[in-house]
Amino acid sequence: MKNSYLPFTFLLIISGLANAQTKPAEKLVPYVKPIIGTQRMGHTYPGATVPFGMVQLSPETDSVGYELNGKYNPKVYEYCAGYQYEDKTITGFSHTHFSGTGHSDLGDFLVMPTVGALRLNPGTADKPGSGYRSRFSHQNEVSQANYYKVKLDDYNIQAEMTTSTRVGFHQYIFPKADDAHIVLDLTAGIYNYPDKNVWTYIRVVNDTLVTGYRQTNGWAKNRVLYFAMRFSKPFISHGFRNESTKEVYRGFWGKFNQNRNFPEISGQRIKAYFDFKTTEGEKVKIKMALSPVSMEGALANMQAEVPGWDFEKVKADGQQQWESELHKIVIQTNNKATKENFYTAMYHTLINPTIYMDADGKYKGLDQNVHQANGFTNYTTFSLWDTYRALHPLFNIIDPARNNDMVKSMLAHFEQSPEHMLPVWSNSGNENWCMSGYHSVSVIADAIIKGNAAGIDANKALDACVTTARQRNYEGIGFYIDMGYIPDERNGTSVSSTLEYAYDDWTIAQLAKKLGRQDIYEEFYKRSQNYKNVYDKASGFMRPRLANGTFRPKFDPLTTIGQGFIEGNAWNYTLFAPQDPKGLIELMGGNKRFVPYLDSLFTMHLPDKFFEETEDITRDGIIGNYVHGNEPSHHLAYLYNWTNQPWKTQERVRMILPKMYKPTPDGLGGNDDTGQMSAWFIFTNLGFYPVAPGSDAYALGSPAIDGATIQLPGGKAFTVTVKNQAEKNVYVQKVLLNGKLLNSLSITHADIMNGGNLTFYMSSKHR
Amino acid sequence: MKNSYLPFTFLLIISGLANAQTKPAEKLVPYVKPIIGTQRMGHTYPGATVPFGMVQLSPETDSVGYELNGKYNPKVYEYCAGYQYEDKTITGFSHTHFSGTGHSDLGDFLVMPTVGALRLNPGTADKPGSGYRSRFSHQNEVSQANYYKVKLDDYNIQAEMTTSTRVGFHQYIFPKADDAHIVLDLTAGIYNYPDKNVWTYIRVVNDTLVTGYRQTNGWAKNRVLYFAMRFSKPFISHGFRNESTKEVYRGFWGKFNQNRNFPEISGQRIKAYFDFKTTEGEKVKIKMALSPVSMEGALANMQAEVPGWDFEKVKADGQQQWESELHKIVIQTNNKATKENFYTAMYHTLINPTIYMDADGKYKGLDQNVHQANGFTNYTTFSLWDTYRALHPLFNIIDPARNNDMVKSMLAHFEQSPEHMLPVWSNSGNENWCMSGYHSVSVIADAIIKGNAAGIDANKALDACVTTARQRNYEGIGFYIDMGYIPDERNGTSVSSTLEYAYDDWTIAQLAKKLGRQDIYEEFYKRSQNYKNVYDKASGFMRPRLANGTFRPKFDPLTTIGQGFIEGNAWNYTLFAPQDPKGLIELMGGNKRFVPYLDSLFTMHLPDKFFEETEDITRDGIIGNYVHGNEPSHHLAYLYNWTNQPWKTQERVRMILPKMYKPTPDGLGGNDDTGQMSAWFIFTNLGFYPVAPGSDAYALGSPAIDGATIQLPGGKAFTVTVKNQAEKNVYVQKVLLNGKLLNSLSITHADIMNGGNLTFYMSSKHR
Repeated sequence: MKNSYLPFTFLLIISGLANAQTKPAEKLVPYVKPIIGTQRMGHTYPGATVPFGMVQLSPETDSVGYELNGKYNPKVYEYCAGYQYEDKTITGFSHTHFSGTGHSDLGDFLVMPTVGALRLNPGTADKPGSGYRSRFSHQNEVSQANYYKVKLDDYNIQAEMTTSTRVGFHQYIFPKADDAHIVLDLTAGIYNYPDKNVWTYIRVVNDTLVTGYRQTNGWAKNRVLYFAMRFSKPFISHGFRNESTKEVYRGFWGKFNQNRNFPEISGQRIKAYFDFKTTEGEKVKIKMALSPVSMEGALANMQAEVPGWDFEKVKADGQQQWESELHKIVIQTNNKATKENFYTAMYHTLINPTIYMDADGKYKGLDQNVHQANGFTNYTTFSLWDTYRALHPLFNIIDPARNNDMVKSMLAHFEQSPEHMLPVWSNSGNENWCMSGYHSVSVIADAIIKGNAAGIDANKALDACVTTARQRNYEGIGFYIDMGYIPDERNGTSVSSTLEYAYDDWTIAQLAKKLGRQDIYEEFYKRSQNYKNVYDKASGFMRPRLANGTFRPKFDPLTTIGQGFIEGNAWNYTLFAPQDPKGLIELMGGNKRFVPYLDSLFTMHLPDKFFEETEDITRDGIIGNYVHGNEPSHHLAYLYNWTNQPWKTQERVRMILPKMYKPTPDGLGGNDDTGQMSAWFIFTNLGFYPVAPGSDAYALGSPAIDGATIQLPGGKAFTVTVKNQAEKNVYVQKVLLNGKLLNSLSITHADIMNGGNLTFYMSSKHR
Repeated sequence: MKNSYLPFTFLLIISGLANAQTKPAEKLVPYVKPIIGTQRMGHTYPGATVPFGMVQLSPETDSVGYELNGKYNPKVYEYCAGYQYEDKTITGFSHTHFSGTGHSDLGDFLVMPTVGALRLNPGTADKPGSGYRSRFSHQNEVSQANYYKVKLDDYNIQAEMTTSTRVGFHQYIFPKADDAHIVLDLTAGIYNYPDKNVWTYIRVVNDTLVTGYRQTNGWAKNRVLYFAMRFSKPFISHGFRNESTKEVYRGFWGKFNQNRNFPEISGQRIKAYFDFKTTEGEKVKIKMALSPVSMEGALANMQAEVPGWDFEKVKADGQQQWESELHKIVIQTNNKATKENFYTAMYHTLINPTIYMDADGKYKGLDQNVHQANGFTNYTTFSLWDTYRALHPLFNIIDPARNNDMVKSMLAHFEQSPEHMLPVWSNSGNENWCMSGYHSVSVIADAIIKGNAAGIDANKALDACVTTARQRNYEGIGFYIDMGYIPDERNGTSVSSTLEYAYDDWTIAQLAKKLGRQDIYEEFYKRSQNYKNVYDKASGFMRPRLANGTFRPKFDPLTTIGQGFIEGNAWNYTLFAPQDPKGLIELMGGNKRFVPYLDSLFTMHLPDKFFEETEDITRDGIIGNYVHGNEPSHHLAYLYNWTNQPWKTQERVRMILPKMYKPTPDGLGGNDDTGQMSAWFIFTNLGFYPVAPGSDAYALGSPAIDGATIQLPGGKAFTVTVKNQAEKNVYVQKVLLNGKLLNSLSITHADIMNGGNLTFYMSSKHR
């Protein structure tokens, strides 16, 4: 063309914009390695799930009983997710798994394809061929977001799985076999010896459709999960085995042969098997839909989500959901390990809590009645002691609508609660009271304060928080209210609970302030200062305090057992007042004591006995006395921001990152705790962290990436730019927010959500 | 007045009519004595219920375990209704009871009021004061239709109960006490040692409202019943006891004291107690609503039926329902015993089957999904082996709309059945396969043939019958279809089942004929002749037949055990072909063999061993070898009508009546069998009996009353008039139907339902 350079510039600009907009976004799913954390401490699972999916279709590598030779079996702790990377066999594939917990449940509806002689017991790992389990090799294993594949060597069967929200989809490629089987073992579970099973039921509706349920008393006290299972080809025959010793009117007068080709079976311990003939390379597919409500509900869920048999499509649909979610934060880095860690961490933050309702919105509530979720999606698996700290705050940035639904789910739980409390640790619509505190108030306050309150009656939410915090009968709250602390004689975790309640109460006060509820504000602000009541000036630690006001005489600040703290010791917990670091520092004697104290946390050498007594901790999981695997530590590295040596925050967090997070199977330094460990990783890489949810502030740290773009609602974005990034450039020289020099060590939620840019200038020397 | 006698006559007529219409109907409830049958064989319960009510609120007089000293405890059989008249203690009042069965279940939600030291075990009858049970005396006991009262002597508490359809209403008059309690024992049941409990739950919603459920595996395989319980005054405190040995994560880390004043408890064996202070004569009332669907459903049922606390009103409302039902047949007699027997029998025919749905129409179906009953009331407790014979035929006369609903309930059961069968013996929405045959086809055919098919797709109903009767895998049906009989080697009750199937098939054929389904008619008419295949000409008995066609060599026609018959012996069962008495008589060698055979049934003397081997039978329950307590006998006395000595029918039935039915606690000669025994009594007193339901004919007998008026739909009435009635006038001289001499020995259903009159002329001499 003979025009001037103006159109050319114009075209350049246009193409530049077009480039930015039409260049296909890099696929992020390839960076997700669900295998990370499946060895040793992480307790993650390698199987398939979609974001927040109800189904987690994943392999079990052993059947672990609570007791071994009459004693507690320590392996029970290791198998919370049903899988340990070092194992050599797979017992089967079940449909529900926790990610990163320290306690067990789920593992529902174990399915195992086999050929050859029918075996209905899993056998043991040390005796190959002794049961239905099969050997496998990691060489023949693929673990992606929403896709898992493995070769079952004992049978030469290739197993693949993928999911939609409520449906697990199996695809098995068989060898030629006259005696192929699918085993469905309802006695299996995580863990299930002794039995968590209360009752189970299987109905063979026809030769391609099976329905049923499993009812358990486990970590969830009253839980029933229903299933509908379709086969892509009819089975030739089927049978059952009932291993219950107790059954009334069993096989009443033998009217039918109830073990072979009979349409239904009920009992406490039942198994079913389905027989096929297969040709070489024949694919047999199975769809297993779940429902918390009914078999009918499960069938409807299957029809709604996966009416057909296109495995690749379901996999692709799920992975497209993953791409969507992962693209909420696009990072720039040349470090492949960082990218794998980052997107695996993103993945791990986006699989809990879990959706807990049918496609039609029905769910079983805490009151064991069926409810209709009106105007929200109902969630469960609230590991709140862990997740209030960074996971829910992360949702407030990248998934506010979902967090809004989670708050609504918690409020529904409160309405249904016989104890009139918000959730403490809830799973499958059950309260299991695990850990301590009443941290849902933090999640609720944080969401509302951060403007994420659409459709929520904020005053009613505040009332629920207040009612919960005034439940005198719950774990020392009565004493806490009357005395300002929980006396040591009355509760085994009196100190940590006092500290946790004080923080929780502070969040209630913040919410009350926002809503103009002055009386509530004053009541709970006062309570939030209670952390000072368990500080022992003489020793300089938080310490168990007796009813008479004195502190417990014999006291060891390093021991985690029996000192009044949950999952931690005084050394760590003394630093737990995230709502008031300034006040804490003052209490402890100012910077001149506080800074060396915090320093020594990271540098001291612990005696061996410390590791012997604590289940969750190994030397690998510790830096000095800093236990990253224990969540009360998660804000600690950021506390330097309130001292005169904030550069130490930057140093510490950059030191913690590579130590505690590696892109390897054993790469997590502690239980992922349903995403909290991963959320810490995300924030810390970005360079800011929500030290006290309920406040709208994020403490600045030291970003470990080259840059990031955070996608916000309404098309906005918040970008992080990092100049002079390098492994040794851990210190921050200066920070610009939207081009202006930032003089504080924090940014606000509004700073992020309005969109804009945060630029860090890094250096190998601190200021 | 100075008018002529014409007006006077007119006035007389008017006043006569007026008299007939406005004279208050005699109250019939006073003649109902639910205590009849509560001693020994009857297995009835004395407590309160409304017609077909879901609740049967009645006292338990012992807690009976299945085993005693490691062996089967024969008392289990005696306590099917939870109560035996000879007992001296009451353990409590529970809300669900069978009437007259031979197997146990139910006994849900045992409530016991006590004063003094709290005891949570029932104790034993031989040690007064050893548990929560109390001594009582029949002098202080009142048992009426929908009302029960007793004084609990150990506590000086007066207990009264009444019900609505879904609510049990207790009224306890306490003495002055500081330590009054209401015990709620969810470990109790009929029977419950070993445990039928799968799981139980109690929630204390507030100090006047408690909800919960009991889940059992018993005679009903998968059963859950929910309750809502309101107290008329708040309890001061409450507590729980959990006797389960196995519970996972029990009282997780002791966060609450879960045994005292805690809002909920779950477990396999739980009990609750509620504490009060009472003044002298203070009434404490409890309403307990049931639901097969949910706790929410139970609460709604209570609100719908008994929103208030007026005990007398609920009692009166229920008794008014009874008056309505009992007035369906108004008899004339001067014999008080006859009247009490008659109205107690009427009562016993009108308490089963039982309504099984919430006030909003929801119920738990056979498929364990929740269903909505659209256009019918859903029933359960179908003891069909017993009730097809006379109970459902009676309903077709006095309660056709209800029987229509029962047929619809059976068809819904079929739709939900995994085995694709109509009910055999169903209870609480579960199939328990008790007894034999597939007699629902008889009930369905009988109803449709008798014109009681409104809202029923008759062809679809026929299809359900046919599908059921073609279930090859069910108890020998496959052999029966292929060979014309069930071979002895294949089934322990091969002969009685062959006979029962033949009868059932005949009813299917009748229905097919009515609907013009010729192919089905021919198939099943042919099958109905199969009864002839198990007749052994050589011995003259129905006899087990081997697959090779020969009859079993060693055979005892008197023994009930192991001879191929269920609940009976060859002597009785040889007469079981109610669909074809003419054919049977011919088969057996004509009247000259048949009549003496039938005679000897009533006159022979059985050896002692016969009674030792049979649980259900005592010498009192037998007339010769005629066992009135076993339903296959029920038509036998009427078979003379097909011989040349029909007068013997009249003689026999008049002889059976006083022997088998007395207005005393032990007045029933056998289990009432959910109303079948009582229905036999009703028909026989009226003078006609449905020998072969599925036919529209009723065989005439010998009425034992002076007269009766049967109320029919649409304001019509069918009256029975008996001339020259007297104890020895058992023979019928002649019968007029609507004034015309009746030459046959039967009337039809239309004869009755069109309204009219049947007049018997009685004599002490037979024709």
